[in-house]
Amino acid sequence: MDLLFLGTSSGTPTRARNVSGLGLLEGNGKGWYLIDCGEATQHQVLRTPLSLSALRAIFITHVHGDHCFGLPGLLASAALQGRQAPLEIIAPQGIEAWLHATLAMSQTHLPYPLVFHAVETLQEWRTPQMRVRRTALSHRSPSFAYRFEEARPDTTLDIARLEREAIPRGPLWGQLARGFDAEHEGRRLRSENYLLPGRPPRVIVVGGDNDTPALLADACRGAQVLVHEATFTEAAVNDARGSFGHSTAAAVAAFAQEAGLPNLVLTHFSARYQQAPGRGACIDELHDEAKARYPGTLFLADDFLRLHLSKEGALQRVER
Amino acid sequence: MDLLFLGTSSGTPTRARNVSGLGLLEGNGKGWYLIDCGEATQHQVLRTPLSLSALRAIFITHVHGDHCFGLPGLLASAALQGRQAPLEIIAPQGIEAWLHATLAMSQTHLPYPLVFHAVETLQEWRTPQMRVRRTALSHRSPSFAYRFEEARPDTTLDIARLEREAIPRGPLWGQLARGFDAEHEGRRLRSENYLLPGRPPRVIVVGGDNDTPALLADACRGAQVLVHEATFTEAAVNDARGSFGHSTAAAVAAFAQEAGLPNLVLTHFSARYQQAPGRGACIDELHDEAKARYPGTLFLADDFLRLHLSKEGALQRVER
Repeated sequence: MDLLFLGTSSGTPTRARNVSGLGLLEGNGKGWYLIDCGEATQHQVLRTPLSLSALRAIFITHVHGDHCFGLPGLLASAALQGRQAPLEIIAPQGIEAWLHATLAMSQTHLPYPLVFHAVETLQEWRTPQMRVRRTALSHRSPSFAYRFEEARPDTTLDIARLEREAIPRGPLWGQLARGFDAEHEGRRLRSENYLLPGRPPRVIVVGGDNDTPALLADACRGAQVLVHEATFTEAAVNDARGSFGHSTAAAVAAFAQEAGLPNLVLTHFSARYQQAPGRGACIDELHDEAKARYPGTLFLADDFLRLHLSKEGALQRVER
Repeated sequence: MDLLFLGTSSGTPTRARNVSGLGLLEGNGKGWYLIDCGEATQHQVLRTPLSLSALRAIFITHVHGDHCFGLPGLLASAALQGRQAPLEIIAPQGIEAWLHATLAMSQTHLPYPLVFHAVETLQEWRTPQMRVRRTALSHRSPSFAYRFEEARPDTTLDIARLEREAIPRGPLWGQLARGFDAEHEGRRLRSENYLLPGRPPRVIVVGGDNDTPALLADACRGAQVLVHEATFTEAAVNDARGSFGHSTAAAVAAFAQEAGLPNLVLTHFSARYQQAPGRGACIDELHDEAKARYPGTLFLADDFLRLHLSKEGALQRVER
């Protein structure tokens, strides 16, 4: 599984960073998922190997514009590129009506169906490749994290159980092995009940805007990676006398250490933090603040940073 | 007056061209106007000397997404940058309701007022610097051109008339000289009636999507520059058996020649036209087709092309 950062700035684009967008690529390299879709996410995708036809689903963490204003244009461009497969969108309820209104206003006719799932009531969203659950966070507007769990970590069929339940060898077994549920003699067979994992599944938790990292304690159990916003340093929040519903690098790092997470990726930086030391604040301040509280593997995301999570749970930069 | 192209691709962004956006800069270098605002127009502005606080007004030619999806993000970023001055938006009626719905959905609160003018019913929009009129075009959706005319081309006060009408010398004269209307003894004095032009005004006509250039014949009278879409070549339209409501380079060039325009700028090119010869079509095909029919000064716009229109009506590239 890979992470490919498409935008790492909070609120507004800068010359170096776009607003929020993150690609999560399946381990088999076929499909990918988009988490948040700030304006110009489709422009960023043009500069990666990702294609809009291989996009399986879009997950939106919350309604602020820097996390969703890129949706209409990305959907329109997928249409121009000939996409016909349905596209699933997991998002706060307001997004669905707004998208329909936007497409109607602009006379945009998509040749593929949009399938919406309201994140507020979502239990689990899954494909044969991935299981996704959500966690409610704390922000100025309702905000959610998504927990991506690999569905079939080198699984093998549980032949003993299949035989015990007298499920006949053949296409039915193949279907279950590939992660699809099946029907047998009027009974629904859930694929996951007939698969034995070859190793622990890879799990990546991606947070939306959030001022209380501890809300992710349950979601992070068994996870190898947390991607979380670190909009400010502690000093900046103290100066401003408010966090605007965001987290500091210190708070996220302390939580990751407490939760025993082996890998932490910070993103969604205030535009005040510049890449190089100079006038104004420097991104190194965020890094140093986090590093002081978190001894694990730490990355501060840049646009187009690509990270590979190995089957063994190691997170490493992929050179372009 | 300068033109600064922010996006020159039709329909969808490419790696080399963004979707529609064009800056028109006042001759005094203070304010500017934005014509169309496709997605990521604000990102393009970041790469120019333009600032969102000096933006006087936004003109939208029609409702298609590649001409307006960048509006919400640009307005939100202007707010983050501290804009407080009202911003005027001249656009098709559907844009106003959509923008309000988008700002409400995304919980975006602008600290400055938006002032809308429906282009369908607009007679003239003017400031002391510029007079703008619109012309209805022909496209798949209602589309408009905007004619920008310099309001005070090296004007001097018409002192003979002021004295004849017994308008007292003093602050009133200064007000009229700076292009502001005034009140005197209950009577409304229109600035333009008391100004004598020192030379013909500079006039730039900017078209929206349009399949019938001849609709611009009136608007182009006295204009030095026409900026018009040339989405396809004639050959491409013949192959596709349709223009999708767009113009060919040939048709725009023939019109410009017929109208006696000294300068023509083509833009809004189909993504099929590549910058360099190679596989697929090349942008040179559009240039050659236009040049064969138009002997005047011809430019094919690229993103960030900047053109200066001199007081004498010569259009020249400004090197960056």
